[in-house]
Amino acid sequence: MKVEKISELTTNRLSIYLRCLNDLAAQGAKTVSSDGLAKKFHLNSAQIRKDLAYFGEFGVRGVGYYIDDLRKHLTKILGLDKKHCVGIIGAGRLGTALADYYGFAQSNFSVAALFDADQDKIGQKVGTVEIFDIKSFAETVKKYKIDVAVIAVPAEFAQDVLEQITNSGIKAVMNFAPIPLRAKGDVKIKNVDLTISLESLSYFLAKPSNKNGKILKPNAAKSRIKQ
Amino acid sequence: MKVEKISELTTNRLSIYLRCLNDLAAQGAKTVSSDGLAKKFHLNSAQIRKDLAYFGEFGVRGVGYYIDDLRKHLTKILGLDKKHCVGIIGAGRLGTALADYYGFAQSNFSVAALFDADQDKIGQKVGTVEIFDIKSFAETVKKYKIDVAVIAVPAEFAQDVLEQITNSGIKAVMNFAPIPLRAKGDVKIKNVDLTISLESLSYFLAKPSNKNGKILKPNAAKSRIKQ
Repeated sequence: MKVEKISELTTNRLSIYLRCLNDLAAQGAKTVSSDGLAKKFHLNSAQIRKDLAYFGEFGVRGVGYYIDDLRKHLTKILGLDKKHCVGIIGAGRLGTALADYYGFAQSNFSVAALFDADQDKIGQKVGTVEIFDIKSFAETVKKYKIDVAVIAVPAEFAQDVLEQITNSGIKAVMNFAPIPLRAKGDVKIKNVDLTISLESLSYFLAKPSNKNGKILKPNAAKSRIKQ
Repeated sequence: MKVEKISELTTNRLSIYLRCLNDLAAQGAKTVSSDGLAKKFHLNSAQIRKDLAYFGEFGVRGVGYYIDDLRKHLTKILGLDKKHCVGIIGAGRLGTALADYYGFAQSNFSVAALFDADQDKIGQKVGTVEIFDIKSFAETVKKYKIDVAVIAVPAEFAQDVLEQITNSGIKAVMNFAPIPLRAKGDVKIKNVDLTISLESLSYFLAKPSNKNGKILKPNAAKSRIKQ
């Protein structure tokens, strides 16, 4: 069987296409061309055609894409037709904020449990989600069929927590702890790093901009650097 | 003057390169080739050369990049040599979690103030950051020279909050409210959407994988979809 690694950038783009198509569907649109999609949402039409062609022939010449069909296909490709159960480790500010995060439900993820080591927190609820003792992690994962773990603990505990997660058989991990964790075996880790978003804002603030919000070609920046 | 839009994907990659170079510097490395950088951090070496060449000639034939030099250049390009002051609107779970977020300081951003409408919260502190009345937003922005706003309010308030931010003269906004906000005029908005990270995990869980963690080429997926 042919094995190939699909880049995360590709799956990220598929997520974005799906979001755009949901938007168009909500507005009552039935079809859209790759050019139309690109123009409306500031995407690249050649990239759209390439990305989608990779997963099959979705477009119809002269029509473009049937929005409902393409949404169904993308939902299936992204595995969003199946429900996933999420366990969040760390019931601090970030963990409890994430338990509330609307995006989970929107993408067919439901938060089943929070975990913490703090005895004062255990047994409390955040909305409908109970905080469990981290010591009962393996049992609770089994009981609630948790298949996605979210790490929301301070950096120094993240590696230990990852070990517990891996031992419990969970294969998908979202890491908010501010250290990049490396996957072991067939576990997939998604490190969420807000610093990258911040730095793109910083770049924007650092550059002189014209009135259309366009950014100057960095020949200027280049010469500045060389000074 | 030539004006061109630099893609956010490019600035995101520059952020990642900077992170990798910091890592290498911490390990005592002095130089690195684009191939070495790509191999170590699972990046694309041709892309690295292209991205960096765009901002000037940083590489030295036969040597690669001088790590310290390149870090300095990237820090300057990304505007990270200047301090930015952040105001977070919404002192709920997410807002207060963000006030604690270590990544801000790491990227030369310091959180100066939280804002909320809840009278019970106003005057309280999260770490060293005070919660101010949203009614005093404009004055507080001026007083603390806040140049970056973070929106951490429920979706239904986000548009109004954006208006207040825009009126106060702030040009860079990070939006965590679960609706995409569009920039007006020369304001730059970065919508942070955790759903995209989630969906890439979902994709991973949906695909059969081999023992090396590689994902099967989606010919299989294609035929499954056609069933």
